[in-house]
Amino acid sequence: MIVVMSPHSTKGQLDHVVKLVEEMGLTSHIIVGTDRTVVAAVGDKRMLDKGALENAEGVEKIVPILSPYKVASKEVKQEKTVVRLSPSGALIGSNRIGVIAGPCSVEDRQQLLEVAAAIKEAGAIGLRGGAFKPRSSPYSFQGLAEKGLKYLAEAREKTGLAIVTELLTVSHVEMLCEYADVLQIGARNMQNFMLLKAVGEQSKPVLLKRGMSATMEEFLLAAEYIINAGNKNVILCERGIRTFEDYCRNTLALSIVPAIQRVSHLPIMVDPTHGTGHAFLVERMSLAAVAAGADGLVIEVHPDPQHALSDAAQQIDPQQFQQLMEKMRRVAAAVDRQA
Amino acid sequence: MIVVMSPHSTKGQLDHVVKLVEEMGLTSHIIVGTDRTVVAAVGDKRMLDKGALENAEGVEKIVPILSPYKVASKEVKQEKTVVRLSPSGALIGSNRIGVIAGPCSVEDRQQLLEVAAAIKEAGAIGLRGGAFKPRSSPYSFQGLAEKGLKYLAEAREKTGLAIVTELLTVSHVEMLCEYADVLQIGARNMQNFMLLKAVGEQSKPVLLKRGMSATMEEFLLAAEYIINAGNKNVILCERGIRTFEDYCRNTLALSIVPAIQRVSHLPIMVDPTHGTGHAFLVERMSLAAVAAGADGLVIEVHPDPQHALSDAAQQIDPQQFQQLMEKMRRVAAAVDRQA
Amino acid sequence: MIVVMSPHSTKGQLDHVVKLVEEMGLTSHIIVGTDRTVVAAVGDKRMLDKGALENAEGVEKIVPILSPYKVASKEVKQEKTVVRLSPSGALIGSNRIGVIAGPCSVEDRQQLLEVAAAIKEAGAIGLRGGAFKPRSSPYSFQGLAEKGLKYLAEAREKTGLAIVTELLTVSHVEMLCEYADVLQIGARNMQNFMLLKAVGEQSKPVLLKRGMSATMEEFLLAAEYIINAGNKNVILCERGIRTFEDYCRNTLALSIVPAIQRVSHLPIMVDPTHGTGHAFLVERMSLAAVAAGADGLVIEVHPDPQHALSDAAQQIDPQQFQQLMEKMRRVAAAVDRQA
Amino acid sequence: MIVVMSPHSTKGQLDHVVKLVEEMGLTSHIIVGTDRTVVAAVGDKRMLDKGALENAEGVEKIVPILSPYKVASKEVKQEKTVVRLSPSGALIGSNRIGVIAGPCSVEDRQQLLEVAAAIKEAGAIGLRGGAFKPRSSPYSFQGLAEKGLKYLAEAREKTGLAIVTELLTVSHVEMLCEYADVLQIGARNMQNFMLLKAVGEQSKPVLLKRGMSATMEEFLLAAEYIINAGNKNVILCERGIRTFEDYCRNTLALSIVPAIQRVSHLPIMVDPTHGTGHAFLVERMSLAAVAAGADGLVIEVHPDPQHALSDAAQQIDPQQFQQLMEKMRRVAAAVDRQA
Repeated sequence: MIVVMSPHSTKGQLDHVVKLVEEMGLTSHIIVGTDRTVVAAVGDKRMLDKGALENAEGVEKIVPILSPYKVASKEVKQEKTVVRLSPSGALIGSNRIGVIAGPCSVEDRQQLLEVAAAIKEAGAIGLRGGAFKPRSSPYSFQGLAEKGLKYLAEAREKTGLAIVTELLTVSHVEMLCEYADVLQIGARNMQNFMLLKAVGEQSKPVLLKRGMSATMEEFLLAAEYIINAGNKNVILCERGIRTFEDYCRNTLALSIVPAIQRVSHLPIMVDPTHGTGHAFLVERMSLAAVAAGADGLVIEVHPDPQHALSDAAQQIDPQQFQQLMEKMRRVAAAVDRQA
Repeated sequence: MIVVMSPHSTKGQLDHVVKLVEEMGLTSHIIVGTDRTVVAAVGDKRMLDKGALENAEGVEKIVPILSPYKVASKEVKQEKTVVRLSPSGALIGSNRIGVIAGPCSVEDRQQLLEVAAAIKEAGAIGLRGGAFKPRSSPYSFQGLAEKGLKYLAEAREKTGLAIVTELLTVSHVEMLCEYADVLQIGARNMQNFMLLKAVGEQSKPVLLKRGMSATMEEFLLAAEYIINAGNKNVILCERGIRTFEDYCRNTLALSIVPAIQRVSHLPIMVDPTHGTGHAFLVERMSLAAVAAGADGLVIEVHPDPQHALSDAAQQIDPQQFQQLMEKMRRVAAAVDRQA
Repeated sequence: MIVVMSPHSTKGQLDHVVKLVEEMGLTSHIIVGTDRTVVAAVGDKRMLDKGALENAEGVEKIVPILSPYKVASKEVKQEKTVVRLSPSGALIGSNRIGVIAGPCSVEDRQQLLEVAAAIKEAGAIGLRGGAFKPRSSPYSFQGLAEKGLKYLAEAREKTGLAIVTELLTVSHVEMLCEYADVLQIGARNMQNFMLLKAVGEQSKPVLLKRGMSATMEEFLLAAEYIINAGNKNVILCERGIRTFEDYCRNTLALSIVPAIQRVSHLPIMVDPTHGTGHAFLVERMSLAAVAAGADGLVIEVHPDPQHALSDAAQQIDPQQFQQLMEKMRRVAAAVDRQA
Repeated sequence: MIVVMSPHSTKGQLDHVVKLVEEMGLTSHIIVGTDRTVVAAVGDKRMLDKGALENAEGVEKIVPILSPYKVASKEVKQEKTVVRLSPSGALIGSNRIGVIAGPCSVEDRQQLLEVAAAIKEAGAIGLRGGAFKPRSSPYSFQGLAEKGLKYLAEAREKTGLAIVTELLTVSHVEMLCEYADVLQIGARNMQNFMLLKAVGEQSKPVLLKRGMSATMEEFLLAAEYIINAGNKNVILCERGIRTFEDYCRNTLALSIVPAIQRVSHLPIMVDPTHGTGHAFLVERMSLAAVAAGADGLVIEVHPDPQHALSDAAQQIDPQQFQQLMEKMRRVAAAVDRQA
């Protein structure tokens, strides 16, 4: 951390800052510049709230140097993390691009089995579907609950696809683990720290979606919570951020893919469905995500989007999905990835 | 809802849209304009996902007309909601501006009792303090848990202040209700719908903080979840939103105060501490919030901010708080409010 | 336009709104819904400020239906616009992806000729370079002015590359037209309407960069200014938008590429250099842009980025550019484009 | 500037960075921490593009320490700048809050004289009105041009109000100076550096509006351009920024008022009209701005907003303005300001 002193700060104020730095167990180096004096505070004390120094008189600002995440970073582990979705399942994080697809919500048994068969045929490795739905409005469809989980488990039996479903609350962990292979933490819960600890204390892989206004650092700190609690099988997922743009529901920030890959060993997928909010943008942004280096895609597919009970504007149908997969494989090959 | 047809859409496509609208139980009105044909779909079917129509061929876009919230709106209840913080406690939502203050985290008994006495003396009506802390980093101070709640309860006994503390997970509801008067839902949990339902199913007042990228509509829908579950005592709180600004931790969006008051009967407070992230901005933005019409303030006060374990850069000390309260009372009087 | 009346509005207020609508030369249709009455106002009066109706009593809000741009849209011209960069030059908007490259600023003759030869060899069709630099700080390098333009013209003679350079003020139009083939309007000037008219009144192609907080509608309206003034040769360019993200200088919003292509006939390029702000992100985001359907790329290339006088952190060197071009051609082929 | 080396960087890479730092004329201090080695580069070389170092191998990131603005900062001038709007006019930056009001556009002589008389009566010190209008759409009303300026000058003669009008292009400077007292640089031109230099080279005061996505640093750098060109009479104006919020046209970021006052000597006004975009929010946000410490307000007032040719949704009428002024004076008194 660097403490930047105000231009008109006094010797006494500088001494006080040095004292505070040393109380924190850090070593201080004073550098007198042409316009500013700065105090470099050296030492690894991630638990401290260094913002405290900002309150000392004569301090202009605090500049952090060290990233606050550690076990999610390449400093600690240089080789890429590869996550097996289920005991007999496929991998995310290898050279092969993995695609997880399925309806926004599990609506009925027939719908789900039909979609599962179609996406398996088209090359997906995982089936997604919400049984408990986090809807902005209490009046919207809230999901089939455990019945939806049973349908998902049945679809796995029939297709071999790994089952991915969202966890909404700590008390559901056990129930979800009974049916699902991968637990998803949704964007709205990325900083629900109790939930992060709970999925960290069990062993199924976790698909962690980026919060809609999360910085890269906050995203990696959320992964850090899970890893620290004991679970190394974390898959990150970019799903669009909230900006002023209004032609789309979210702005898909693809540059986070290479940016994450530079500092972290965790695999990162992209969700072009929530990442755009409109079915007509899904194919193009899927191809772009693969070209940007994503380790996989999460795509909503519904047998009849015009009658979907949730996320209807952004789901594609099985035929569109199959075409997307064919085009995606060509782009994957062009960037030396398998798919 | 208005369905806007594409300029080159066909008669068949229009007929199909009308059919979909009527399948939804809505009545359709076709209006042929100079550049566009639109279908106005009339009826109150908030549960439907009208986005489904966007997938129909020939549709350019869907324009919603009705706000999705209802019980939080003035349409349903015109008189202002006034919330009593505790059985013998003060009100939020009346002409009198209510101030809730206290440390970010409960750090120790002595610290808490000292602050409680000081803010009571300065005119606060509630004491805030975190016992379970939602920290971005797993390495940061995580709170004293139940011990912190006991200190809060002791402070209430000594001062009569209503106790406000944050709820992080459904399983803590009972424990918190034992000690606290008001349950706070933090910004990161504004769309944790399980938590919203849980606080809706008990009777203590709820302080609902705006999510850092929540629209006004999403904010009111979160309140709607709580009210629908049975609890009408909801207090809203603006606490800064995430934008590109970098001189502050969050951008305090004060115009949401009069905007909410135009459409909703719920009281709305402002948190200038998180809303700016810097102690030197807290006083000015407190005065601005009161001038903008806020029903109250939530302010972090720590006996020694330079040694605080969390949120250190943004807490003010008891003396600064007392000065703030004196200035605030003058501004309140200038806008015909008591304080 | 749809005028939504307040739930408690009166008959008199509705009549007044209808009168205002008709004063505007529009036809009104009243639709009485279950919760709201709306007035649909029909007619093409783009010049009117319909916001005026928001001030009428009893009005809740105004919902526009028609996009405000016209000549930039597919409604008026369905076939894609293809722009020839110079009389003997290559095309943007055809099936072939066009790449414009070169240094941020023209720094000296030797530097420029060296880069020009290198990018020509690697397959670029245009040479970019700033002679007048719009720098955030008055202390930063401001460009070589006309001397820089002469070097650019010399580079064209030697390589045949089309010359692209930024126009900063109306009085420079003539000078720039003497040397350059394509006039660039920078992001900071996207709503400098005098400049837009000025480039519209001459005949050289215009490369119009998206403003860093411009909506899609504002971006197309800026193009509309140029086309309306007489110049149809407009090339759009996405170059990153301002968001809360802090690992990059801007957030490259690639989904605007397919979104623009859905509503407009204008070609759209992508600038991954400004769009990310970091050299290590340029290659990946170039590939993603091509996969997303971009008609071309604008990339900063400097012979020695470690000593560049401007935008140093984001420029790549000629060798990195050549590798990028090779990879890009493979991705282009995978999406059935030439390059 | 601090150069942070990567955790696995080599001695040779560190030596190369030190060499680059010294080539820049800066002194280097190496600090070896527990997790990172950093190079502190000391010296005042604002003209350099220090980003160049980011390209050196082994560099993780560059952290600037010094703010890039200088003459706009308190480091150079501690006493507050007070600007006289016209030779016989009132001041901005003194203890007295100054209000500039008037229609968005000058529409006709009668309208303007009527509004001028009304706002003078209510206590305004300046009359604003656009003669050349920067409209997002080429189809919108573009202003009366020089005729509008003549009406403004006539209004000054009749009322003594200082005339404030927007400058759109360098070639208009002379014409505007003939009629107006204060030249306004609009939000869309905040980084039109040619225009900034042009107003810096003449002597009339400049009202510089914040760009809608400008950081505080960019805002002060724009002021720095003007001051550096020779004109010290710069008045800043916050007018709302672009965020995801959709209940308002812009998010009024009031905390920039105290934040600017902490680092700069320049006066800062607030424009609640553009800062919200809705007439019903103007009064409340005017009061909040004054409580936040603003040196003045810029407010759009139109005799008949329902028929305004531009910005119709956000203008208030003379009667509403008078009420606002009365309330504002009470808030001003409560924060020890005159009005």
